[in-house]
Amino acid sequence: MRDLDELCVNTIRFLAVDAVEKAGSGHPGTPLGAAPMAYVLWDRFLRHDPADPNWPNRDRFILSAGHASALLYALLHLTGYDLPLDELKRFRQWGSKTPGHPEYGHTPGVEATTGPLGQGFAMGVGMALAERFHAQCFNRPGFPLVDHTTYAVVSDGDLMEGVSSEAASLAGTLGLGRLIYLYDDNHISIEGETDLAFTEDVRRRFEAYGWQVLRVADGNDLEGVAAALRAAREDAARPSLIIVRTHIGYGSPKEDTAAAHGEPLGPEASRVTKERFGWPVEPDFHIPEQARAHLRKAVERGRRWEGEWGELRARYREERPDLAECFQRQVQGELPDGWDAEIPRFSPEDGPMATRSASGKVLNALSERLPELIGGSADLAPSTKTLLLGYGDLGFDSDCARNIHFGVREHAMGAIVNGMALHGGVLPYGATFLVFSDYMRPPLRLAALMGVRAIFIFTHDSIALGEDGPTHQPVEQLASLRAIPDFRVLRPADANETAAAWRVAVESRKPVALVLTRQKVPVLDPDAYAIEDGVRKGAYVLAECEGKPDVILIATGSEVHLALGAKEKLDRLGTRARVVSMPSWDLFEEQPREVRERVLPSDVRARLAVEAAAPFGWRRWVGDAGEVIGVERFGASAPGTENLRRYGFTVDNVVERAQALAKGS
Amino acid sequence: MRDLDELCVNTIRFLAVDAVEKAGSGHPGTPLGAAPMAYVLWDRFLRHDPADPNWPNRDRFILSAGHASALLYALLHLTGYDLPLDELKRFRQWGSKTPGHPEYGHTPGVEATTGPLGQGFAMGVGMALAERFHAQCFNRPGFPLVDHTTYAVVSDGDLMEGVSSEAASLAGTLGLGRLIYLYDDNHISIEGETDLAFTEDVRRRFEAYGWQVLRVADGNDLEGVAAALRAAREDAARPSLIIVRTHIGYGSPKEDTAAAHGEPLGPEASRVTKERFGWPVEPDFHIPEQARAHLRKAVERGRRWEGEWGELRARYREERPDLAECFQRQVQGELPDGWDAEIPRFSPEDGPMATRSASGKVLNALSERLPELIGGSADLAPSTKTLLLGYGDLGFDSDCARNIHFGVREHAMGAIVNGMALHGGVLPYGATFLVFSDYMRPPLRLAALMGVRAIFIFTHDSIALGEDGPTHQPVEQLASLRAIPDFRVLRPADANETAAAWRVAVESRKPVALVLTRQKVPVLDPDAYAIEDGVRKGAYVLAECEGKPDVILIATGSEVHLALGAKEKLDRLGTRARVVSMPSWDLFEEQPREVRERVLPSDVRARLAVEAAAPFGWRRWVGDAGEVIGVERFGASAPGTENLRRYGFTVDNVVERAQALAKGS
Repeated sequence: MRDLDELCVNTIRFLAVDAVEKAGSGHPGTPLGAAPMAYVLWDRFLRHDPADPNWPNRDRFILSAGHASALLYALLHLTGYDLPLDELKRFRQWGSKTPGHPEYGHTPGVEATTGPLGQGFAMGVGMALAERFHAQCFNRPGFPLVDHTTYAVVSDGDLMEGVSSEAASLAGTLGLGRLIYLYDDNHISIEGETDLAFTEDVRRRFEAYGWQVLRVADGNDLEGVAAALRAAREDAARPSLIIVRTHIGYGSPKEDTAAAHGEPLGPEASRVTKERFGWPVEPDFHIPEQARAHLRKAVERGRRWEGEWGELRARYREERPDLAECFQRQVQGELPDGWDAEIPRFSPEDGPMATRSASGKVLNALSERLPELIGGSADLAPSTKTLLLGYGDLGFDSDCARNIHFGVREHAMGAIVNGMALHGGVLPYGATFLVFSDYMRPPLRLAALMGVRAIFIFTHDSIALGEDGPTHQPVEQLASLRAIPDFRVLRPADANETAAAWRVAVESRKPVALVLTRQKVPVLDPDAYAIEDGVRKGAYVLAECEGKPDVILIATGSEVHLALGAKEKLDRLGTRARVVSMPSWDLFEEQPREVRERVLPSDVRARLAVEAAAPFGWRRWVGDAGEVIGVERFGASAPGTENLRRYGFTVDNVVERAQALAKGS
Repeated sequence: MRDLDELCVNTIRFLAVDAVEKAGSGHPGTPLGAAPMAYVLWDRFLRHDPADPNWPNRDRFILSAGHASALLYALLHLTGYDLPLDELKRFRQWGSKTPGHPEYGHTPGVEATTGPLGQGFAMGVGMALAERFHAQCFNRPGFPLVDHTTYAVVSDGDLMEGVSSEAASLAGTLGLGRLIYLYDDNHISIEGETDLAFTEDVRRRFEAYGWQVLRVADGNDLEGVAAALRAAREDAARPSLIIVRTHIGYGSPKEDTAAAHGEPLGPEASRVTKERFGWPVEPDFHIPEQARAHLRKAVERGRRWEGEWGELRARYREERPDLAECFQRQVQGELPDGWDAEIPRFSPEDGPMATRSASGKVLNALSERLPELIGGSADLAPSTKTLLLGYGDLGFDSDCARNIHFGVREHAMGAIVNGMALHGGVLPYGATFLVFSDYMRPPLRLAALMGVRAIFIFTHDSIALGEDGPTHQPVEQLASLRAIPDFRVLRPADANETAAAWRVAVESRKPVALVLTRQKVPVLDPDAYAIEDGVRKGAYVLAECEGKPDVILIATGSEVHLALGAKEKLDRLGTRARVVSMPSWDLFEEQPREVRERVLPSDVRARLAVEAAAPFGWRRWVGDAGEVIGVERFGASAPGTENLRRYGFTVDNVVERAQALAKGS
């Protein structure tokens, strides 16, 4: 190691150690061991511009081992991002820019929120995928407008998580050569030696996935790391995993032990470590001037790179103004004028139509005007109706093919969709059956936490899917999705509500789940109902009675038609019923009180909710005096119509319950 | 293929085809392709007793590719299980024993509920693990009381799911030689050729995990399958994957296409297929007498095997009555007398204690009297406090070691715990942070659906965990768990409630989640409060006021102490407040109305719930007039006490909100 390199590496190491020490909590072990590889990557390879963390053509760096956040914050500070040293001194404190795990949107230069293991690994695959797609769409001979690499530091924990296996297999299948991961192979996990649980041959496993696997025997060998990174960059056809043998807590008294992982070294061990490295014990947060000057060169390099790229883009704009404009729009995440002009208007005369089918039509109608709309399904495209017709299979057909075949990998699909959204320039979607949203809870949560634009399509949304039985019939999933903060859930009632829900989804700045039927449902007359406005508000009066209602029927999705049927009968029986369609709790919750009051007047306490899902949470809308016709146990294997009947989703049952309520009120 | 063998294979094939055809839905493709391997396994290898599906020493068979259920039902019927042909004719109909996907507890001989892909694969690992543990504990020289193998048929979909990667890696690490999987390698998934998404080298991948990998080039080559199964059984040190090249929809006009996967062949294609195989087109559900007679020999073999084993057990009982009795008790899932005698009683003088720590003490106190209690954590044992002290590391230390190191594999942990529970004879537990319960939603759901005895320990249960930040702080997880049908959730308030919760968990016949704090909380005085009875009822009056309460404070877990603190202050301020501790919504829901009314009288409408989690669902308990102090957004990285304060979890805020409510009432 050159003296200056060593100085820089140790500066990173001790900024991290001191940050953890000052916070009184955190993870010093990984920064001590992984600082050299991170330094080489950031100093010699990573093309980024600290002055402009949003430069579209920057390389992406993900710290998938998010617990080592102090390492990332040290790098960001030292290379000149807007992250003052004072923020490192406030590591893990309320309101600081240096939370315990890196948070996207919170700290400049943090490309992804990490910490839940495996997520960063899989999001990187999404970024590399978006990069390739964008490059195919926009690059022209002599104009490599989109030309960057996705790097990550990953841990044994990341590799143990199934989501990384799923993502790695797909990355290998697609040959994502612009994906380069450094594996911090330190042989230690929280419970002790990794051998306790993890004796697999990582090299062979990743070779099996179609990756190039490289090895660096000594994590302190900067030239070794550099050589591996060069070899990784030279292989354009395969993703690369560089296995770097490191030592957790390197140089500290806790080296190579689990004790170095998740707690401060303590003042004494910290002192001993600094002395071993010939580092001044005092003051803490010490940054030698030479190290600062060297690492800060990133600013100048970044300015130069971005400047050169700006010139390239200027020439590109002259040559291909159409493409340049589209590129600009996409990376800014803006929608083109008339983006929704092709969305169909469905008519009751079209006959009954599953909302999944309507969704497929809307999606395809959107696809031409929104070339950034790309996505696919976890091996259920024919069922989720998410194929973009005529746009080819990504990785197989011509350039810019937009259908992604995720395979039976819901979890990775979620994380890859997140990664594509983080990369920017695309509007990604992923689809599976609603019940299998359970497989992708961690990325759904992260999508909400990061606030990315991503659309999740969940079909086969109730016991009405029928014969596949309880393993495939969602019950508690709707409630579980609704419980996630900052996450939009829409369950449209028909084709026109589905179209409106897609409008909401495309315009949304937060992740959205569209919950759709397998079975056919009637089409609501768009001339008779204010559907689009109603969906935007989350709930609206679909069918009104004369005078004050005796009872309000609140329904979502396919059950709206049941409520309408019941109302018809109640009318005949002289019970005044209002029908409220409520495709989205969260949108409705956001409405002003007056709007909500108009739909659900507080003086009408007889309210009956009808939804083929767990009633969990419905009390919020029906109140103490109300009731819910829901699904209070698991489903059953039988034809969907029979299931609905057996579980009480019949006009007669709704009428009976509604009348009882109306009488009681 | 011998004529008789061929006849049997085709009998299986067409029973499945006809069942799907009659149901008008289902999956004929896999049964057509995989019938030969399944036949060889069941006819020549599987040691089972159709007359006694619960014989403890039977080999286990899992159809991880659960969509091929008709194949399994055909085998169960033909080999003599209590599954009449009429049930096959009612495939996928309401109330039949032949649901769309196999359901444990519903159909004799079905060892696990499958359908959600990857779950069967991972549950099999749990079964093999339980078998080995039990063999170590009970077998003695000359007495191989526990001596069986776990088999499964797995699909490409199973192998794509991350959970199977996690489970396979752990199975390899532990060298589970009694685990043998047949991989139905048919090159087709729902979206088309598996090459679209799955080009990995499965052989190399599984070799990397430490498995023996065998290949059968032609799935119709019965001798090839048999030879591979023999080789698999001979390798006692490694699990085996047998890659069997098959053709989906074999022999049908839809062979080798995705169209053969998920829908009936249709009458015409069905006829053509039968003709190609020289099978009578009519009648359907045809079973040639020779085939029936041959396959039915399983009954006689089974009776003989179980008889021999019964003799072995009788001799064992004479030799080792103590062990025999314990074995008998464990496989029957009964608890020994005095099983809970060592559970500690905590005293307020012990000082504040995190409920995770109390749980660790209780768990260890239980471990001696409950030798069937085995489990571990997804690499968080030191944090979840789930190490059984003195009981060694399973797979590494001496026989009967009980601590399982699952690695950072929450999803597989959940499925493996399920598999161990299904195997029987053990009471398994798995632990991680509450937020990471998201990684294991599918097995949690399956645990509930199957009704297995399994205990899930989720610690670090709120924003109070502090500095690790929002990625690690659960918010919506409690609501999401509570929404699962047939799943028990307990969030105890202190060490004594934790002990009571453990009693509930050990006695429960359904899966239980214990939700525990990271931070210390005071110990409630067990002499002053009826804690054990209260926890069993789900909610109870912890602190009473004189006369009718002005307000009821309802809290769970750590927030109970906040409620108690607020009550003290409210007392001084002249507001009569009752404090209800509510560790379990579901237990309370099951109480008779009078019990619930005594705790939450309907005429006290001023109710304030306090829980550091999403308020989702609380309206059920606080009513229209009540309020909730909850967490309505994601958490933050800061010391836990600061988080609590910033999010409103202070005595003053509770007092203020309670007074406002009391005044309003």
